[in-house]
Amino acid sequence: MTDKVRIAIDLMGGENSPKKTLNGVNKFLKRNSNIDDCHFIFFGDKNKIDNQINEYKFIKDNFEIHDTKIVVSDDLSAMSALKKGKNSSMWKSIQAQIDQKADVTLSAGNTGVLLVMSKIILKTLEDVDKPALAGLWPNEKGMNVVLDLGANIECNEKNLVDFSEMGSALFKSLFPNENPKVALLNIGHEEMKGTELLKNTSLKLKDLHNFGDFEFKGYIEGNQITNGEANVIVTDGFTGNVALKTAEGTANFLTKTLKKTLSENLLSKFSVIFSYFSLKNFRNKLDPRKYNGAIFLGLTGPVVKSHGGTDSLGFSYSIELCYKIAKGKLIEKIKNNLSHTKSLNEKAKS
Amino acid sequence: MTDKVRIAIDLMGGENSPKKTLNGVNKFLKRNSNIDDCHFIFFGDKNKIDNQINEYKFIKDNFEIHDTKIVVSDDLSAMSALKKGKNSSMWKSIQAQIDQKADVTLSAGNTGVLLVMSKIILKTLEDVDKPALAGLWPNEKGMNVVLDLGANIECNEKNLVDFSEMGSALFKSLFPNENPKVALLNIGHEEMKGTELLKNTSLKLKDLHNFGDFEFKGYIEGNQITNGEANVIVTDGFTGNVALKTAEGTANFLTKTLKKTLSENLLSKFSVIFSYFSLKNFRNKLDPRKYNGAIFLGLTGPVVKSHGGTDSLGFSYSIELCYKIAKGKLIEKIKNNLSHTKSLNEKAKS
Repeated sequence: MTDKVRIAIDLMGGENSPKKTLNGVNKFLKRNSNIDDCHFIFFGDKNKIDNQINEYKFIKDNFEIHDTKIVVSDDLSAMSALKKGKNSSMWKSIQAQIDQKADVTLSAGNTGVLLVMSKIILKTLEDVDKPALAGLWPNEKGMNVVLDLGANIECNEKNLVDFSEMGSALFKSLFPNENPKVALLNIGHEEMKGTELLKNTSLKLKDLHNFGDFEFKGYIEGNQITNGEANVIVTDGFTGNVALKTAEGTANFLTKTLKKTLSENLLSKFSVIFSYFSLKNFRNKLDPRKYNGAIFLGLTGPVVKSHGGTDSLGFSYSIELCYKIAKGKLIEKIKNNLSHTKSLNEKAKS
Repeated sequence: MTDKVRIAIDLMGGENSPKKTLNGVNKFLKRNSNIDDCHFIFFGDKNKIDNQINEYKFIKDNFEIHDTKIVVSDDLSAMSALKKGKNSSMWKSIQAQIDQKADVTLSAGNTGVLLVMSKIILKTLEDVDKPALAGLWPNEKGMNVVLDLGANIECNEKNLVDFSEMGSALFKSLFPNENPKVALLNIGHEEMKGTELLKNTSLKLKDLHNFGDFEFKGYIEGNQITNGEANVIVTDGFTGNVALKTAEGTANFLTKTLKKTLSENLLSKFSVIFSYFSLKNFRNKLDPRKYNGAIFLGLTGPVVKSHGGTDSLGFSYSIELCYKIAKGKLIEKIKNNLSHTKSLNEKAKS
């Protein structure tokens, strides 16, 4: 890494791009006017970018544009995207890390294609069998890192142990003043609960606890994800995906019901005027755009996936995520943590 | 079944029993003053029951008390409960079905013990390999039945198919004017998504769809559980338990955050006065006590488990559940539905 944090951005991925993505960069810079060490490497249709970029006054000289005409569309399968995608904005924005021109890659494009391309270009870290998709999830005391969110529907013990070490590294690079506390998602907190896989993983994590990369808090149940007792929640990709989407669905359902209730009669409508700022505050606190961005962990370089349907504000927060994990030396931390898993395994063998 | 619906109740299970459970019976009768065909068979400490029962004016002559001194405590393992539990209120309330004295059993006691005792006493239905725990879950259009909620952490294709048929029977007995719409919980709605288990189950359910017990809606993701497109959500016990508890946790987290926000300053506190009835209405609509009660499906008789920590209002709704499933001839419906699975399997073999 040079002195600057170099973020490669696929400007063409997701809905309303490059307008949304460029506006996202603008919002990120406006919100973080104190950040002066950020350099953007944009990939996309230069004509479209040039047409837009002047509108965004915070984007000044800290960028370069690489003209790419091919866009990976959302309905493309990974196989066909790979065939014709080598000159796409997505591919090039990942390739920039291999060319030593970028420290991190961001795209709001097709998730499946981004995962496959990232694996092919960046390669999986030596000690990792399966890379994982991690996300942020608010809790009562701050923020959780949760993984895997769907990259691997079936996992073994080594995968879950790797996820714990990688998730802790991610947590530490995002929140340097806090300590990672790992928990395994299960259907009870007693030791006898759950699958053999979870029981064996739990034993390994107890040993790894002593290396100091994280504190191991044992099992938690779904209703404890948000209590803040743990902050790195580890599970297989099937369970993680169901849990995340169920939480999203529940939040939407409650918000809709609340809205409906508050507009039921004149008195309640009136009350909304008085509670306007509080309700706005409530929405602000839990705005999913503020923790937009899933991080692909286990490759030789960091790749962040923004939600395709988010708006420019959401995209701006995924840029913040990129900046923080590059600044926080995520990959170095992952390698360091994984070396402890390795030495534990070697000790067990000898 | 005689003309009356005979509900066997373990009055001693759960917190604050038998006070809570008796008060629950009272509340059920008060709320349903039109119901005159309900007969209660109470099991528990007769002294304690006699001390309480006069306080509850709606409980008149439609009950009998069977004195049992042994209570299955919440911290007991299934094995030790079985050893000394044969004279307990829990055991006797299940046994009442075998003795042809009750049509359904209700307990707020230890879930694990209740499951094991129920299996031993009532036996699993001939065509079922694994009984399942089903629960109610509100959606935008009404109510879902969701199963399995934790009885079986690992399931095969036959189990999930049985769950679909049994869940549909439960839905139909609770909501006779609506049609069951089965969906498999998955991490995507496209056919190629998910485990081999889900893909194979999906093929079977497509065939069973034609028997008319349910409409098969394919896969749904966690965020679609509450949209009401499907109303019988089928999954393995591990995923179902995590999803249910994650939804509970999310609801708690949001409610807490909302409360905090609404008491942040004077203006917002003031607004609560105006929105008092609306917010009360909101809480009412989503009050988890209103859908308290998990139904143990796949045995020769119906057993309902009330949440141990619920109050008398919650307990009263689990009595309503018992009444409805007995009235709706749940077991008959399950047998009928399962016969279709059987004939499909036989057709496949021949």
